[in-house]
Amino acid sequence: MKNKKEIIAGIIIIGNEVLSGRTKDINTSTIALWLNSLGIHVKQVRVIPDDEKVIIDNLNEFRTKYNYVFTTGGIGPTHDDITAESISKAFNLEYGFHKEAFQILEKYYKPGEFTEGRQKMAKMPTTAKLILNPSSGAPGFYVENVFCLPGVPSILKSMLGGLNNILVGGDPVISRTINLRTVESEIAKSLSDVQDQNNEVEIGSYPFFKAGKLGVSIVLRCTDQKKIDHCNEQILKFVIAKDIEILSEI
Amino acid sequence: MKNKKEIIAGIIIIGNEVLSGRTKDINTSTIALWLNSLGIHVKQVRVIPDDEKVIIDNLNEFRTKYNYVFTTGGIGPTHDDITAESISKAFNLEYGFHKEAFQILEKYYKPGEFTEGRQKMAKMPTTAKLILNPSSGAPGFYVENVFCLPGVPSILKSMLGGLNNILVGGDPVISRTINLRTVESEIAKSLSDVQDQNNEVEIGSYPFFKAGKLGVSIVLRCTDQKKIDHCNEQILKFVIAKDIEILSEI
Repeated sequence: MKNKKEIIAGIIIIGNEVLSGRTKDINTSTIALWLNSLGIHVKQVRVIPDDEKVIIDNLNEFRTKYNYVFTTGGIGPTHDDITAESISKAFNLEYGFHKEAFQILEKYYKPGEFTEGRQKMAKMPTTAKLILNPSSGAPGFYVENVFCLPGVPSILKSMLGGLNNILVGGDPVISRTINLRTVESEIAKSLSDVQDQNNEVEIGSYPFFKAGKLGVSIVLRCTDQKKIDHCNEQILKFVIAKDIEILSEI
Repeated sequence: MKNKKEIIAGIIIIGNEVLSGRTKDINTSTIALWLNSLGIHVKQVRVIPDDEKVIIDNLNEFRTKYNYVFTTGGIGPTHDDITAESISKAFNLEYGFHKEAFQILEKYYKPGEFTEGRQKMAKMPTTAKLILNPSSGAPGFYVENVFCLPGVPSILKSMLGGLNNILVGGDPVISRTINLRTVESEIAKSLSDVQDQNNEVEIGSYPFFKAGKLGVSIVLRCTDQKKIDHCNEQILKFVIAKDIEILSEI
């Protein structure tokens, strides 16, 4: 197993609509799954309000703590979109029209439709690098290790691919899921023994209810396929000994 | 308008499965909507790993910062369920079998089925107060202002009602949503003017795509119905002047 340093990330979800419960955040899952495929592991997620001081404080904490920071939300044209200006302040950079972003948006809209309201979307740290937006024109941006993405899930998703060659990842995490028809307490002791003997494999146990029936998903995660296989074998051994039904292995 | 002090809360989602992107967190939304109805406002959410030190540090930060703290996840019977022990350590309380919890679980299971694995679910700070679980027996618990709930959404949801009389809330937040067939940049300037004239109403603007069509939800939030109504009127005025279609008002 190569011993690359672990590359870690933090996600900051900016938006009162998530804190109020009105909107369920699905961007965390989208970003985390994509980062996993690049060998980057999300260590913390924070959901914070549209409040300049809070954004700046959290950003400054995260950008020194993690290799990469992703923010979502608050880069649209309305008064509650304050992410771009807050990030300029956090980095002590000039906030104003970004030349390239302005040109992209000017070209995107029909003549006469690039109104003052829309022009706000070209405002950001003037020296930021852009994250192109194949869905709806308005680009995201990044400054050093901080990547600012929009909050609308479909647009955010369409923009991630453009960053694949910019991020430097580690070994990708391989995961294996074993779904069992059992309850956690039935396997807790055996699973704990397997974990003790397989320190480098993260073993998670997640109960579920599906179609009125109880089950448990056991999820193995590690960067080393051999270690996953070894761990998997030990789990199957006690599962078979206990006569537990295996619903699926993924 | 009464001038009650704002009652604020923080949520800590404990679970590697959310950080890996495998599971989308919906508990935040459930808890936040319920707290809103009690006049308690969620100010921050953190998703953190199943790691004792991280749990203790975040818990100790949150419990001094917010009136109420809610944790979800990590109170089941398996090796990766370390929330109850971490909370005991954070409060410097004895971790062991909780008498009442043990009795509840003993009664819940058929004779002989309250195995060692299951008994772990009765382990928590021995002086904690219980949060009863009408779905599946195993109770949650609270210590001072920290409330520990399970991660399984349906079980969590079933347990909240039992806390209604324990939490002390403020004025409930009233919200009003106006869904428009427009784009944000069309209304950004007018909406910003309304916000300037209605400082006490939080006005959020959220673009959406539904059935292939663009729209914007404007959400007004305030504890004072009159202030919402006044703000709403001003918004409808510019919406009508701009000839924007109103899709719904909720």
